[in-house]
Amino acid sequence: MATFAELWESLLPIGRDDGTGGYFRQSWTEPELRCRAWFTDQAERRGMAVERDGNGNLFAWWAEGKGQAVLTGSHFDSVPGGGAYDGPLGIVSAFAAVDVLRAEGFRPGHPIGVAAFVEEEGARFGVSCLGSRLLAGEIDPDRAAGLTDAEGTTFAEAVSGDLGPEPPEDYRIGRDDDLLGRIGSFVELHVEQGRALDVPVGVAGAIWPHGRWRMDFAGRGDHAGSTRLEDRHDPMQPFAHAVIAAREAAERHGARATVGRVRALPGGTNVIASQVTAWLDARGPGDEVVRATVAEIRERVSLAAAFHGVDFGLSAESYTSLVDFDADLRKRIVAALGGAPVLPTAAGHDAGILAARLPTAMLFVRNPTGVSHAPEEHATEADCLAGVAALAAVLRDLAAP
Amino acid sequence: MATFAELWESLLPIGRDDGTGGYFRQSWTEPELRCRAWFTDQAERRGMAVERDGNGNLFAWWAEGKGQAVLTGSHFDSVPGGGAYDGPLGIVSAFAAVDVLRAEGFRPGHPIGVAAFVEEEGARFGVSCLGSRLLAGEIDPDRAAGLTDAEGTTFAEAVSGDLGPEPPEDYRIGRDDDLLGRIGSFVELHVEQGRALDVPVGVAGAIWPHGRWRMDFAGRGDHAGSTRLEDRHDPMQPFAHAVIAAREAAERHGARATVGRVRALPGGTNVIASQVTAWLDARGPGDEVVRATVAEIRERVSLAAAFHGVDFGLSAESYTSLVDFDADLRKRIVAALGGAPVLPTAAGHDAGILAARLPTAMLFVRNPTGVSHAPEEHATEADCLAGVAALAAVLRDLAAP
Repeated sequence: MATFAELWESLLPIGRDDGTGGYFRQSWTEPELRCRAWFTDQAERRGMAVERDGNGNLFAWWAEGKGQAVLTGSHFDSVPGGGAYDGPLGIVSAFAAVDVLRAEGFRPGHPIGVAAFVEEEGARFGVSCLGSRLLAGEIDPDRAAGLTDAEGTTFAEAVSGDLGPEPPEDYRIGRDDDLLGRIGSFVELHVEQGRALDVPVGVAGAIWPHGRWRMDFAGRGDHAGSTRLEDRHDPMQPFAHAVIAAREAAERHGARATVGRVRALPGGTNVIASQVTAWLDARGPGDEVVRATVAEIRERVSLAAAFHGVDFGLSAESYTSLVDFDADLRKRIVAALGGAPVLPTAAGHDAGILAARLPTAMLFVRNPTGVSHAPEEHATEADCLAGVAALAAVLRDLAAP
Repeated sequence: MATFAELWESLLPIGRDDGTGGYFRQSWTEPELRCRAWFTDQAERRGMAVERDGNGNLFAWWAEGKGQAVLTGSHFDSVPGGGAYDGPLGIVSAFAAVDVLRAEGFRPGHPIGVAAFVEEEGARFGVSCLGSRLLAGEIDPDRAAGLTDAEGTTFAEAVSGDLGPEPPEDYRIGRDDDLLGRIGSFVELHVEQGRALDVPVGVAGAIWPHGRWRMDFAGRGDHAGSTRLEDRHDPMQPFAHAVIAAREAAERHGARATVGRVRALPGGTNVIASQVTAWLDARGPGDEVVRATVAEIRERVSLAAAFHGVDFGLSAESYTSLVDFDADLRKRIVAALGGAPVLPTAAGHDAGILAARLPTAMLFVRNPTGVSHAPEEHATEADCLAGVAALAAVLRDLAAP
């Protein structure tokens, strides 16, 4: 079998921008399709059966033993300009951990599965963890089916396109209790996205509540030279106040709030914009903190919008409450690792969604700079190997005969 | 001959977005090429010879009389989401004025020309009045030739593409003294872009100094959830300060400053931007006012950028000083119209560029709302007809035998 480094390097060129070093692997676009083909190939090399659920999530099964399976894995898709590790590290480490267990002659008492969830970042259809949300019944399937990407393709069209010309008759978007019933626990390995770890591997405590809001500013397009300041309805002005209010409200409430995506139309240099649309990402240690942060932003921006004669709307696109992973599973994992630090995370994950249905847990691999969602995202090879060893130890324990 | 209304309506569908009602006619894209074909067709119907200079500007000549010509006309290209009148009204009115003069049996003592200048808005290649700047020698031809559009096509490629597979041997981008020498004066009719007119037609006094600056904010992409506020290098923050500083500095200095175009990369909802690029449009009644406005914006944004650990650069893309149109020509035109109000304008025009080489003047047609560069831009048909009559009166006077 290939080493971890060989597995890792075989994925590295896929979807990488050789100019910036950043990755862009959107669900079911060419780079993510190549990753999915890689997944199937790796499963077949190991004699693992590949299953695709009605939502487009992939599973590779080491189908020995009895009863409920131990599932591990993560996602292939990335944010625009993202790093190599966020997602793929969990899938590569899963196959590598299977190889470790087999090399030592381990015979599982329960099936072991490797998962690749679709659309975790929400970069194509706008809702994060879409594949796991659907599987777990945490989003209305009709709403999900109708979500569109920038070209107007719906999620339903993307899923059925992936199923080929003759999709199975029982294919269905939405909660899959049969599949969920076959899984006893889910353990996701992920690169850490802050600088909270001073050892190679840690265990997740809780996931901060987090959500996305869309901000629409509707003004009036006009000539940038001849329109008097007092006659303007310039949506860029209250948008600018929103960016500053997000930062200041987050500071005041001990939260995090970010505006990283904006579109101004029509977008001429000598034209006052008619419409600005932007997205707010807000998170915090508790639901109340996030609510108060977003409420303050809404209030301040509403005042600025009224002053500038601009219509302002703010609507939630997704929200995930505080996720506290299963305490018993966490204790068992910490014990299997001979002790490991427990740390909270402000990033959302498929494990956070599945926690509503199953005992779930997460392993984090140290990230020296803490940078994530950017080309600088990194983990050393030694820390990655420690992650594989830790995941193998966890699977050895949870799937013990 | 067609009436003004028929001429006007024949242009109206070209490049219009039927959803918003806005126009987008970029130089040498399909809508502008259709307008250029319309121009050639209208010239041929009137027996006027069509000439295309080395910069892509079009001229239709009523080649009677002797000596230097009287030139009128305007441009076809629009800003994104622009109105129907800005540019085309001057060209349609020019052909209609020729029809008026011919219908009354006028025999010109000087040639009369109708011009369609290319890339007046600068929406494709970034520099406004590019066609007239080149003709007048007001921009370095090598710089202009190398300007690129969003797809990377250069201005030189666009010009030579327009000339067809066998361009004339003497075709050359840049100042054309032969052509300039054949023109005695240029009078551009244009829709008014403010609400300063309370009669159908006015005459331009001066054009405010105006320019465009590019603002580059370079930060560091990172995870919107897991990156602590104090660890961020978020370029969206100083960009927001730039938008607010532009408005406030313009208020303080009696100028106008606008940010209508922005691009944030990589543009993910859950990603702190790594790079924001935006454009500043600034104008004022005098050079000193514009300079002071831009200096204040630069100073405030530099402070905000330093606070947020973001690199900030501001560079001028184009600048046009105060243009005071030829006083003798203006007096003569006001007299020919039997008196007309003289008003300044904050909008740039090809006439402002050609003023450096020729006696030039402008007629403005009333715009009831003052809205321009937007679908609501409008002039009543009665005012347009008054504009045609005024332009005919001016041509009758200037081209008198």
